[in-house]
Amino acid sequence: MQRYSKLFGKTIKNSKEYNSHNATLLIRAGFVKHEMAGVYSLLPLGLKVLKKIENIIREEMDKVANEVFMPVLQPVENWNQTNRFDSFDVLFKAIGANENSRKLNSQEYAIGASAEEMVTPLAKSQNQSYKDFPFSIYQFQNKFRNEARPKSGLLRGREFIMKDSYSFHTSHKDMLEYYEVMKKVYTRIFERAGLGDITVEAIASGGAFSDENSHEYQTITDVGEDTLFKDPKSGVIYNQEVTPSKAPLFDTSKEQEKDIQEVEGKGIIGVEELAKFLKIEVERTTKTLLFEADSGKRVIAAALRGDYDINTEKFGKVIGSTDFQLASEKTVEKITGAKVGYAGLLNLPKEVEVYMDDSMQERKNFEMGANKTDYHTINVNFGRDLKLPDQFYDFKLAKKGDICPESGEKYEIMSAVEVGNIFPLNTKYSDAFDYKFIDKSGKLQPVYMGCYGIGLQRTMGVIAEVFSDEKGLCWPDTVAPFDVHFITLDKDHDKQAQDLIKQIEGLGKQVLWDDRENTSAGEKFVDADLIGIPVRLILSDKRTKQGGVEITHRKTKESKVVSVDELVQGGF
Amino acid sequence: MQRYSKLFGKTIKNSKEYNSHNATLLIRAGFVKHEMAGVYSLLPLGLKVLKKIENIIREEMDKVANEVFMPVLQPVENWNQTNRFDSFDVLFKAIGANENSRKLNSQEYAIGASAEEMVTPLAKSQNQSYKDFPFSIYQFQNKFRNEARPKSGLLRGREFIMKDSYSFHTSHKDMLEYYEVMKKVYTRIFERAGLGDITVEAIASGGAFSDENSHEYQTITDVGEDTLFKDPKSGVIYNQEVTPSKAPLFDTSKEQEKDIQEVEGKGIIGVEELAKFLKIEVERTTKTLLFEADSGKRVIAAALRGDYDINTEKFGKVIGSTDFQLASEKTVEKITGAKVGYAGLLNLPKEVEVYMDDSMQERKNFEMGANKTDYHTINVNFGRDLKLPDQFYDFKLAKKGDICPESGEKYEIMSAVEVGNIFPLNTKYSDAFDYKFIDKSGKLQPVYMGCYGIGLQRTMGVIAEVFSDEKGLCWPDTVAPFDVHFITLDKDHDKQAQDLIKQIEGLGKQVLWDDRENTSAGEKFVDADLIGIPVRLILSDKRTKQGGVEITHRKTKESKVVSVDELVQGGF
Repeated sequence: MQRYSKLFGKTIKNSKEYNSHNATLLIRAGFVKHEMAGVYSLLPLGLKVLKKIENIIREEMDKVANEVFMPVLQPVENWNQTNRFDSFDVLFKAIGANENSRKLNSQEYAIGASAEEMVTPLAKSQNQSYKDFPFSIYQFQNKFRNEARPKSGLLRGREFIMKDSYSFHTSHKDMLEYYEVMKKVYTRIFERAGLGDITVEAIASGGAFSDENSHEYQTITDVGEDTLFKDPKSGVIYNQEVTPSKAPLFDTSKEQEKDIQEVEGKGIIGVEELAKFLKIEVERTTKTLLFEADSGKRVIAAALRGDYDINTEKFGKVIGSTDFQLASEKTVEKITGAKVGYAGLLNLPKEVEVYMDDSMQERKNFEMGANKTDYHTINVNFGRDLKLPDQFYDFKLAKKGDICPESGEKYEIMSAVEVGNIFPLNTKYSDAFDYKFIDKSGKLQPVYMGCYGIGLQRTMGVIAEVFSDEKGLCWPDTVAPFDVHFITLDKDHDKQAQDLIKQIEGLGKQVLWDDRENTSAGEKFVDADLIGIPVRLILSDKRTKQGGVEITHRKTKESKVVSVDELVQGGF
Repeated sequence: MQRYSKLFGKTIKNSKEYNSHNATLLIRAGFVKHEMAGVYSLLPLGLKVLKKIENIIREEMDKVANEVFMPVLQPVENWNQTNRFDSFDVLFKAIGANENSRKLNSQEYAIGASAEEMVTPLAKSQNQSYKDFPFSIYQFQNKFRNEARPKSGLLRGREFIMKDSYSFHTSHKDMLEYYEVMKKVYTRIFERAGLGDITVEAIASGGAFSDENSHEYQTITDVGEDTLFKDPKSGVIYNQEVTPSKAPLFDTSKEQEKDIQEVEGKGIIGVEELAKFLKIEVERTTKTLLFEADSGKRVIAAALRGDYDINTEKFGKVIGSTDFQLASEKTVEKITGAKVGYAGLLNLPKEVEVYMDDSMQERKNFEMGANKTDYHTINVNFGRDLKLPDQFYDFKLAKKGDICPESGEKYEIMSAVEVGNIFPLNTKYSDAFDYKFIDKSGKLQPVYMGCYGIGLQRTMGVIAEVFSDEKGLCWPDTVAPFDVHFITLDKDHDKQAQDLIKQIEGLGKQVLWDDRENTSAGEKFVDADLIGIPVRLILSDKRTKQGGVEITHRKTKESKVVSVDELVQGGF
């Protein structure tokens, strides 16, 4: 039993609003302290929630993997071996803070933002025979990421504990089979943490970890950071960053081809503004973007229907490169002969590679930049003015109303927060560290890897954000800091309270006892609602006269007075 | 039950010798992997031991403190506020590892080497009324220290988990009372971890944390890093760094004063060499050291009997400064008129402050540097040649044979390894962060603090080092990675083994099962001895015929065959 009077970290009345609902709630209720951007201390209540989440994950992970603990300080050489020391844009490094420290040891270290650079050589040092495979290890360890502007409270920290696990396989097939095992483990973890009903699996980008798609566990919530697209037919869900999409048709089929024409529109650049000016639909405008790729060796024009934005993730796959950026002003002027903002596909120099998004398709009489400062071309038509390309591509950022190319159905759209992700790493890291296994015939063969992460503070933040109401937090039973919030209203009941608490603890329940003197009943009830422990028990004269103690469930807000006997026979 | 065949991290035959016995053992037995100087990964066996130590500490700490979790990334401002950013010589800092990262966020952070700079503002943010005091919080968190050359295996890492706790008080008296509570907690922790019989409490330096003495928990072992001095009368034990000491008398009382004389001894500098050259006892020689202190404002001469070295910790207290270092060659030459190595107390310029250690006392006809290159003065006598100082001091490094000034008894000397330490911080950190409490009358009063640390890897390393024999590790029951090392010698017994293991697990015991095929009995036994689990059980045809299974206790090496019934009725 924890006395609230002795608990370090109490509720804060009227604390300011933080950058997110979860941070505001958790700080007010005394679970965490905001130390600086993206960095929080966990107070006892917060740490208890985190430990419960950790234990759920550990119990499920222990069924499939061995727990280890790898260091935060990592050799720079290892990160150079994967080329991530200079390219992983959230990586921190450590070095002696002052001259004396650097005199003792002047070495620099990578600070673990992820553990592929440690786990691959570690696994290689232990297991090399096919007999050792498959195997899987995991850890709970602080991760450090130099996020630009962390602004989602506990959801995105510069420092946070991650359960990261890594699996090792003798074939791509075996890796994929284990991947399915891990999906079940993840599903079970989020179920047990109370997020099961509202957490879905989504296909996402491999990011800095993998060239293949990854899978995310996304909790559906209105305040989500991510947008998901669900194909209602197959049930498959995509993160917007990788959603394949077809634009709904902008129907110009009944139109006659009009005469192509250049229109002066001085300084008019944005498609909305342009459509208004030209008195045409936005869908009739065209966005033409110029890129330089592969260290400037390629110049690429990408064109989409004006109401779409480019999805660089998808576009990279189309052009087969991740090394590209918007062309410089100088290059744009050289290529188009016009200032930035008036690019179109007409009369581009031959060396420019042209890619058209399929939203461009089946349009008549559309607009395009004229490659002439201040001018826009209208009534452009395929065949007559612009060669119909051999192939249209899909590199648009999916948006509301878009169609799943697979099923032909309109996507359902959801807002969600990622709580876990899993990546098929294939041989990316084993190649970097030349980790091969010896097969039955004694030959060296490539090792396949998968990796699987869950951020603990993020999971806590999501639960806090999703399970809360206007009065405060509302923890699921399995991750609540305590099971019972016990309240007495005066000193006279202290002895009786202690006896009853002992009985409740005998039922295996953890009790927080608000034993404060000089604190009003009202204040105690407000605090209990804010803290959000599932069951509140009140012991007072009034309730004793009514025949027992008052029990209130935080979630349903239902209250009743029950006898002590009923209570200790498990009546809640 | 963990199958050894599926355990990540196995024994390594013939692995090299590492820098310490504990590292060599733990690496060979598959508990840890050495990643780089001072940095280790914990493999599953090692992590299990660490977690058992952690749980013992947590159970004891929870009786007196609330657990929290403070960040590793800490604001540089906080460390500037205590002047430790530039002066704490093992401090690391973090900064974006590459240009892109620094573009996202160019901020520097201190990396937690200790948590005073976080916990003091944290406590201040929560508790300010006298009603909140005393209170105490603790955490298990990675600490990072840029040690020069970490060479004691797990005992001194650049990264390690520390249980650090901090207590807060309204008076010095209350702080000291709690300090005694913590001593009991620490004693109990080391008892439970199996180190009770061989761990003592020693008085030590406050180091970078406190101006007062601290207390260390030291485990007695021949391979200890520290030397302890025990007063046999009071039982008080000192770390050498703070041991008050009296030199045994070098008896010259019956001598006549001889004529003072300068002797040429070209290039002879060390006292041993000099004594030999002059054909006198080393005790007759004198070490004179010149220091510059307080940013060069003071020049100080310190003289000791030749067979003693200076203890800079004690000397700092004598001269009332921590800012001092050996005088530069230039200063020595200016002050003494001679090259370095020939300094003595005779004819020093007046501005030099002179301090003499009490080992200098009661000597006649002693030697001293002549303040003349290549020359030594012999037959120096107090009164006649050198003014008898008003006071002698004690700033010698205690050594074997020294006497405790308090009791007059000769010290007992022990070699030991520190496993925990506690510091009375007083108001050092609360002053730095202007943390005061409001007393009953509404006045602001200073907050007193204590801090208390235990390094987890260090504790594991000490246990490994102390409890081992020529065959390997020998874990105490309470921290062993498993309770039972179960061995089968062929596949035929697999079914029977699984049944029996289930029964043993029913007794609350954790089992490691060496189920490997194609591994000889001998190899399995060697591995079991190396890994050091307290109880080994062998199930085989031979033993079955003898009526049961063979049970061997790792520590006593006693073996016998017991029936399965006897075994599962708790027969071990």
